[in-house]
Amino acid sequence: MKQEYDGTSIGVDRRELIRATAIGLGAAALIGGTARAQDASSGAQVRAEAFAQVHQPTPLPFNSASLNGLSQRLIDSHWSNNYGGAVRALNETKRRLGDALGDKDLPPYIYNDLKREHLMRTGSVVLHELYFENLGGNGRADDAARAWLSKGFGQFDRWEAEFRRIANGLGGGSGWVVLGFNQQFGTAENYWMADHMHSPAMTVPLLVMDMYEHSYHMDFGAAAAQYVDAFFNNINWESVLERIEALNGRGTA
Amino acid sequence: MKQEYDGTSIGVDRRELIRATAIGLGAAALIGGTARAQDASSGAQVRAEAFAQVHQPTPLPFNSASLNGLSQRLIDSHWSNNYGGAVRALNETKRRLGDALGDKDLPPYIYNDLKREHLMRTGSVVLHELYFENLGGNGRADDAARAWLSKGFGQFDRWEAEFRRIANGLGGGSGWVVLGFNQQFGTAENYWMADHMHSPAMTVPLLVMDMYEHSYHMDFGAAAAQYVDAFFNNINWESVLERIEALNGRGTA
Amino acid sequence: MKQEYDGTSIGVDRRELIRATAIGLGAAALIGGTARAQDASSGAQVRAEAFAQVHQPTPLPFNSASLNGLSQRLIDSHWSNNYGGAVRALNETKRRLGDALGDKDLPPYIYNDLKREHLMRTGSVVLHELYFENLGGNGRADDAARAWLSKGFGQFDRWEAEFRRIANGLGGGSGWVVLGFNQQFGTAENYWMADHMHSPAMTVPLLVMDMYEHSYHMDFGAAAAQYVDAFFNNINWESVLERIEALNGRGTA
Amino acid sequence: MKQEYDGTSIGVDRRELIRATAIGLGAAALIGGTARAQDASSGAQVRAEAFAQVHQPTPLPFNSASLNGLSQRLIDSHWSNNYGGAVRALNETKRRLGDALGDKDLPPYIYNDLKREHLMRTGSVVLHELYFENLGGNGRADDAARAWLSKGFGQFDRWEAEFRRIANGLGGGSGWVVLGFNQQFGTAENYWMADHMHSPAMTVPLLVMDMYEHSYHMDFGAAAAQYVDAFFNNINWESVLERIEALNGRGTA
Repeated sequence: MKQEYDGTSIGVDRRELIRATAIGLGAAALIGGTARAQDASSGAQVRAEAFAQVHQPTPLPFNSASLNGLSQRLIDSHWSNNYGGAVRALNETKRRLGDALGDKDLPPYIYNDLKREHLMRTGSVVLHELYFENLGGNGRADDAARAWLSKGFGQFDRWEAEFRRIANGLGGGSGWVVLGFNQQFGTAENYWMADHMHSPAMTVPLLVMDMYEHSYHMDFGAAAAQYVDAFFNNINWESVLERIEALNGRGTA
Repeated sequence: MKQEYDGTSIGVDRRELIRATAIGLGAAALIGGTARAQDASSGAQVRAEAFAQVHQPTPLPFNSASLNGLSQRLIDSHWSNNYGGAVRALNETKRRLGDALGDKDLPPYIYNDLKREHLMRTGSVVLHELYFENLGGNGRADDAARAWLSKGFGQFDRWEAEFRRIANGLGGGSGWVVLGFNQQFGTAENYWMADHMHSPAMTVPLLVMDMYEHSYHMDFGAAAAQYVDAFFNNINWESVLERIEALNGRGTA
Repeated sequence: MKQEYDGTSIGVDRRELIRATAIGLGAAALIGGTARAQDASSGAQVRAEAFAQVHQPTPLPFNSASLNGLSQRLIDSHWSNNYGGAVRALNETKRRLGDALGDKDLPPYIYNDLKREHLMRTGSVVLHELYFENLGGNGRADDAARAWLSKGFGQFDRWEAEFRRIANGLGGGSGWVVLGFNQQFGTAENYWMADHMHSPAMTVPLLVMDMYEHSYHMDFGAAAAQYVDAFFNNINWESVLERIEALNGRGTA
Repeated sequence: MKQEYDGTSIGVDRRELIRATAIGLGAAALIGGTARAQDASSGAQVRAEAFAQVHQPTPLPFNSASLNGLSQRLIDSHWSNNYGGAVRALNETKRRLGDALGDKDLPPYIYNDLKREHLMRTGSVVLHELYFENLGGNGRADDAARAWLSKGFGQFDRWEAEFRRIANGLGGGSGWVVLGFNQQFGTAENYWMADHMHSPAMTVPLLVMDMYEHSYHMDFGAAAAQYVDAFFNNINWESVLERIEALNGRGTA
């Protein structure tokens, strides 16, 4: 794409693009440690104009029947109805924003009603993609991830205790729990988020957990704590470690 | 610090640390294109344990008397009372979280009340730091920034029209407007945010505008549109361009 | 009634009390039945000091196995886990507020974290009580209710169309739909509410519908529209009409 | 209007109307004065179809130059820009809702974006009207109000301490403090509210305080505590007492 561009931009090579497409324009830029190491100039190029992008759902990165204690019915419904619905709604919202931007008579506060939908659907799509990406593992954190989290929280168990507590406190409503690296502060922190619009600024998500009731009610009813256990048993720690390694742009030197 | 670490971590050299401290542990990691080019292994190391970090306010990067159409009284109050107050509140909240985490009898939903404060104060501190950092300029976007935004929005003017519209729609209440690069989607997008807890996930802020009434009421009363004009006249486009350049970890190749 | 007044209280005569009990205006009948019967002067009298009141769950006003298309398992879980949990959390929050009010060193913004919990749990308890109260019927609106809603919305069907649309738009997350009489405006209006803290000021709820996912996921999964149909089939229109009739304080003259 | 009505309506006698006017219970007296005077049977009768009502701003019930420590400039701006703007926005929102309801292709979640604006503007209009109504007094609570609040909070001073604490904790952002009578619980309680959409369900507001920054920044800058003092010095306790007296459905006979 470099040839199409005018000098201010930053290239992305074809292989990166193909890979990004294949995994659904997902966390490609952040996660793909190896790919990026091979093309460190990628990542900042705009892939589509705002509102012109049509999102496609990213396929589940695991067999939905393969999880330990989370049913295929739950996962399939979560992916196709909740995540899939968010993708469709985001596309519709962007289309309407494109139209609304040209309507000079639209009061700005009415325009912002659509922008709120934009923020919410963006959060829902992105967070769901990260959630499914860090699911489907065996739940065993390797030493490297444990060491990094110990550094951030004093002890690995302290990290886990807080993450679980936030999750349990969100039972019965909406929300997300996010372990993130706050680039402004240089800290690893867990964050409570009550809906798709919430997020800590300047923070790279490392482990993302959906606490909306659609994440567990089919399997566990109101017993959110059982879902929290099941989630931990299925964390894909490899994806978490890749996100940690990608933080410095090249992985561990 | 490398010697203190066990192999999974990522170093940060003393010079980086000093610089980060000097500019207030601010957007150092993201913005410091040059510094990072010299130490590409930096950036992912935890600077302090969660809750143990005591934040210091980042000084204003410009003379508060030097802005064009925004009074020194307004800027000084904004910095010392609103931003400064957020720093103090964040420190207090982290201290209380450290205590609360050890209290086994605390219901998780009560713990989460503090985590909400944590999210809100984190957002307020980070967004204010980015806001002051992209203020204090002459308001003239150079060609590189204009080209990058044209790519993202079809036209530079289309970007500006939407950013201003969102801002005007937020008059009379709380909120932020953020131009960000959505790393998940590969898009440049403007976001409406209604309070400090809002933020688009996986998005690097490039231009941040405070629309809380404390940003303008002293100078303009309820005439938010006059503040929007004044903000545009004082944008520090150099800092915006640096943030764009830092997106790929090295700046433009 | 002035003659019954002792300086602190405001009278209510026995007829008023009987009416209030008969039509179930609030938890009055349920919580303080006996006490109020012994002190008929208590219409607007405070039943307990703020924070000192210990709430007891209001029993379901219908047999949970008797609904049409909503399973006993769903209703029982909703009542005991979600509503019951809210009652317990409200009691705990009030207890903590009583303690916190005496703590002079507590920053007001930390105190307000508890007040937010207070607002949220209050909303959850109250709205759940109203929801169960207007459930358990045969779903057939009588002529009087239809006429009143026709007056408010032009047509009864127009009211229903909007109420259903709001409900369907809330699928996949949290929220409530409320038909209320806005006393400030003299209008009947449907309201979208995204969580327990939302509510239109100066508005008396007439029909309340829970759209949190715990209201339907066990029975319908993500198919919120099926739940909306089922809810309409089980509306207790008698309770709605009683609430309408109670609006002017005396019922139909 | 009785002649237009079908028998399901609910009367209100002339005495009730006079009382409502006298104590300013809602915008009734203000908005529909003439119409209601012509049809005294309208207590709970709908004054206008949902979305068809065009609101007119309620005049300030006091001379804006007469307050003690709150400037005329602040009050006039608050009334004309913030309250007046909310009235205009509510009218525009209702007009758009009427159109949108007939658009069968509009996704329900987009429709709900307008309903959120509806809820927010409704709250803003209603709360501002109640706020100005309970302002303009001499700040001295008479014995009856003190006694009633002592009953609700143990001590009058305990009520005041909590109300002030909530207010101070809201400094620097948006929000309201409301003393209300919770009809479901039979309690007098203070409520924290972070924006116009918040409100405790089934609660009659008795004293309403605006904590949006536009309520004080012109006069006090960020010194919210000075505004809290000034507000207390200008409370119109007569209006508060009238609201308390109206709680039992007939007021003192």
